[in-house]
Amino acid sequence: MPSLKPALELLSHGAKVLNKSINKPIQGTIKNQKKFKTLTFYNLSDGINKLQLTDSCNLLKDRKLKLGEVIKINNYSLSDNPKFNEIITNNDTVIEITGPIDENDFPFKPKEKKTLKLLRDLPQYKFQSEYLSNLLKFRSLIETSLINYLSKEGLVKVAPPLITENDCEDGGETFQISTSASKNFFKPTSGSNKKNDKKTLPKLSNLTVSTQLHLEIMAQALQKVYTMTPCFRSEKSQTNRHLCEFWMLEVEMGYIDSVLDLCEFSEKMIKEVVKTLLTENKGLELISEYEPLESNEDKKDLSNIRRSDLLLQKWRKLYEVKWEVLEYGDAISLLQENIKQGKIQFENDNIKWGDELQTEHEKWLTSVYYKKPVFVINYPKVCKPFYMKQNKDSMNRDIVNNFDLLFPEIGEIIGGSLREDDYAILVQEMEGRKMDVSTLKWYTDLRKNGSIPHGGFGLGFERLIVYLYGLKNIKDAIPFYRSYKSSLKI
Amino acid sequence: MPSLKPALELLSHGAKVLNKSINKPIQGTIKNQKKFKTLTFYNLSDGINKLQLTDSCNLLKDRKLKLGEVIKINNYSLSDNPKFNEIITNNDTVIEITGPIDENDFPFKPKEKKTLKLLRDLPQYKFQSEYLSNLLKFRSLIETSLINYLSKEGLVKVAPPLITENDCEDGGETFQISTSASKNFFKPTSGSNKKNDKKTLPKLSNLTVSTQLHLEIMAQALQKVYTMTPCFRSEKSQTNRHLCEFWMLEVEMGYIDSVLDLCEFSEKMIKEVVKTLLTENKGLELISEYEPLESNEDKKDLSNIRRSDLLLQKWRKLYEVKWEVLEYGDAISLLQENIKQGKIQFENDNIKWGDELQTEHEKWLTSVYYKKPVFVINYPKVCKPFYMKQNKDSMNRDIVNNFDLLFPEIGEIIGGSLREDDYAILVQEMEGRKMDVSTLKWYTDLRKNGSIPHGGFGLGFERLIVYLYGLKNIKDAIPFYRSYKSSLKI
Repeated sequence: MPSLKPALELLSHGAKVLNKSINKPIQGTIKNQKKFKTLTFYNLSDGINKLQLTDSCNLLKDRKLKLGEVIKINNYSLSDNPKFNEIITNNDTVIEITGPIDENDFPFKPKEKKTLKLLRDLPQYKFQSEYLSNLLKFRSLIETSLINYLSKEGLVKVAPPLITENDCEDGGETFQISTSASKNFFKPTSGSNKKNDKKTLPKLSNLTVSTQLHLEIMAQALQKVYTMTPCFRSEKSQTNRHLCEFWMLEVEMGYIDSVLDLCEFSEKMIKEVVKTLLTENKGLELISEYEPLESNEDKKDLSNIRRSDLLLQKWRKLYEVKWEVLEYGDAISLLQENIKQGKIQFENDNIKWGDELQTEHEKWLTSVYYKKPVFVINYPKVCKPFYMKQNKDSMNRDIVNNFDLLFPEIGEIIGGSLREDDYAILVQEMEGRKMDVSTLKWYTDLRKNGSIPHGGFGLGFERLIVYLYGLKNIKDAIPFYRSYKSSLKI
Repeated sequence: MPSLKPALELLSHGAKVLNKSINKPIQGTIKNQKKFKTLTFYNLSDGINKLQLTDSCNLLKDRKLKLGEVIKINNYSLSDNPKFNEIITNNDTVIEITGPIDENDFPFKPKEKKTLKLLRDLPQYKFQSEYLSNLLKFRSLIETSLINYLSKEGLVKVAPPLITENDCEDGGETFQISTSASKNFFKPTSGSNKKNDKKTLPKLSNLTVSTQLHLEIMAQALQKVYTMTPCFRSEKSQTNRHLCEFWMLEVEMGYIDSVLDLCEFSEKMIKEVVKTLLTENKGLELISEYEPLESNEDKKDLSNIRRSDLLLQKWRKLYEVKWEVLEYGDAISLLQENIKQGKIQFENDNIKWGDELQTEHEKWLTSVYYKKPVFVINYPKVCKPFYMKQNKDSMNRDIVNNFDLLFPEIGEIIGGSLREDDYAILVQEMEGRKMDVSTLKWYTDLRKNGSIPHGGFGLGFERLIVYLYGLKNIKDAIPFYRSYKSSLKI
């Protein structure tokens, strides 16, 4: 059965068959129509190709075709203007509605504004929106471009498990798994179900919150590995920057001993992706000028700058400037100084060394002060997970060799570090945090038998999409979002 | 901190510094050692590169270096034979053990055979085995090659959710998800938790068994989509061909109306991957001649044919021959005929039209009769899931437009079909199977409003790896396996 391809192939070969009826049926969805007195234009799409149907014979006048319907056309004429992907009706043309719309069971009214709020929760129809389907193509381009780059750099793509006993971040925000097939579906590991006592639900195991600990095993053997997998966190966050199920690109590399090498690697990696967007307008081709509003109450942006121009400018800048590297201690001083001088006000104005940077601080550093991405390195140990490599800074304070990559508009997009490879320090840190060291013996073992220095990072893939496509809500960066208090529907 | 790279770079540039001590420290794991009277050879690896350390000065004689230990070497000499990646000790050479092995807490005894049975359950050490680490590189090559091919063919890589309410295959073999964060973490969907009553565990939702239904939504809008994600089935199978967590490549395409087109597409796709293996010996480079035995009781294969030659032969044949397409009805006749003639015996010898093909039948058709991959098409409706496009065959029996791709040695590797796009027939089928149609309204809606014909397939990725790498057990095709009655450990 045909898409729009048969006609487009003839047109692209400049077939001179103007007065002939073409007997190669085509099929596509009506995306738009424009009616004039003597003729009507229909824009058709098959998801990949576009074609204009010009009903110059007014054959369809009384058929009342609806947007979203799929039609099959045969015995049509080809336009003789090679600039247009256009076919024209003639008196032999046969048009059949192969995918009609049942008006009584269709969620959109004819003139209704399709806001993002409405589309987001209509999974079976949302991708008929050009904005959202282009967004999927954009996401695919970014993902495959990342995979290509990392493969070319010699990193091995590995598949860590999503069902796991570990809670890498030790934050307890995991989803638990069970099965009705059998209570003891997996063999219980001695000592590993300790936390279970506090919970009301029997569990088999967790869904992974990060695959890092597994990646460290493989980096020890293969040196450079990465994965791109779903990760799961049951955070009770209802913001426009959190998802419970998100995709993470995680990279882990052996024989790394400087956090600056990790910064350099991730800057180059993202810049390579941006370069793909800039190459042959690959990115711009996927930018819809028309961006649906969040809701009916939103005001349309009245500036005359085209969305594609704004994004092109953003990508170019991202690609061309050298990103900032800033010590955490200097970031705090900078914030304190500007607060003191009254140049900026934050909800949290009393920030001091040892505090987490809040999103408002991150956004100020990147969007206002540096106006570009910023690597903040060497955080206080207390702010960060147990596995980061420890150190002292010049003030003799406990820091870790880590980095957070902060992006304008959204804040943290990557978190990474060298990993503590000293067995004694690692175990001491875990005990200090009251972690059950016995359940992670396999992990501490990596520092005991054939240890190598290593480090890596995790990139929140949807956050990168948010920034590069200029989204307002991370829920649109993934085809079907899962977040706190959302309905699953499907 | 260095890997083996600094020395290899000097060697590859043909540095003529034979009698000079090189002050560029290198670091790697000892994979092998050979002792002679006056000198010892050590094979070092950093996971990517290999290097030979020749201790011609007998500096290490009394250090008792152990396999698996990581050493750092400085002030060494370079071999003057450009054929060898070799460095040589001199009297200035300094060797430090940066990753010692704690003999009291190391799972391998010095002369112990490292069988697959032993390695498989030692996650933190297993990838030190060259066979298993090469296997990961091989898997990565296959995966990225598939992704590249599909992107090149214009398919959009999409990310369907793994947390879902649907049980695509309606087999009930799902893992359930819960969280201690909140009982109503996701908004309940009315009517959708019906099955829950029978279960003892409260659940939020399922882990996906197949992303097909979500893909169908996106194929309707984007025409050609694919995904490569983990899928989960809580089957109580303890075989060498089942995993509970496995990766599936799923393809879904609009405007397809022949199952033969799907067969052709998948044949071409797999052949492109095999072509990558054959190109510049990319596949052979990752084949370890030494294959660990399954257990200490296994007998070593005494044939003199090298593993790499066997595999090369297999890949070439796979690439060069045209695969068979066989009607299900003809497959049954063929089996019956050969059973009747006494040419073959099966455990299930009483096979008739309407029965599932068992693995023993699939293996006979592929390994014995046709000696190549076989597409079996047009199965009886009763053997297959509700969503397959229905038809009648010449005997007026109810069949579906599907295909199973069977591979020699392993049986089914792909299952696919056209999808039923007639609303009335689909709903009738679901009702006939006592499915709750209301919970899948979003899915049946796809046939109501702007329906297009479409089809697709799912490839069990680990099974493809099993075949191409010549594995005996699917548990080795994934870095950390999850299967019934296995221990999770990590």
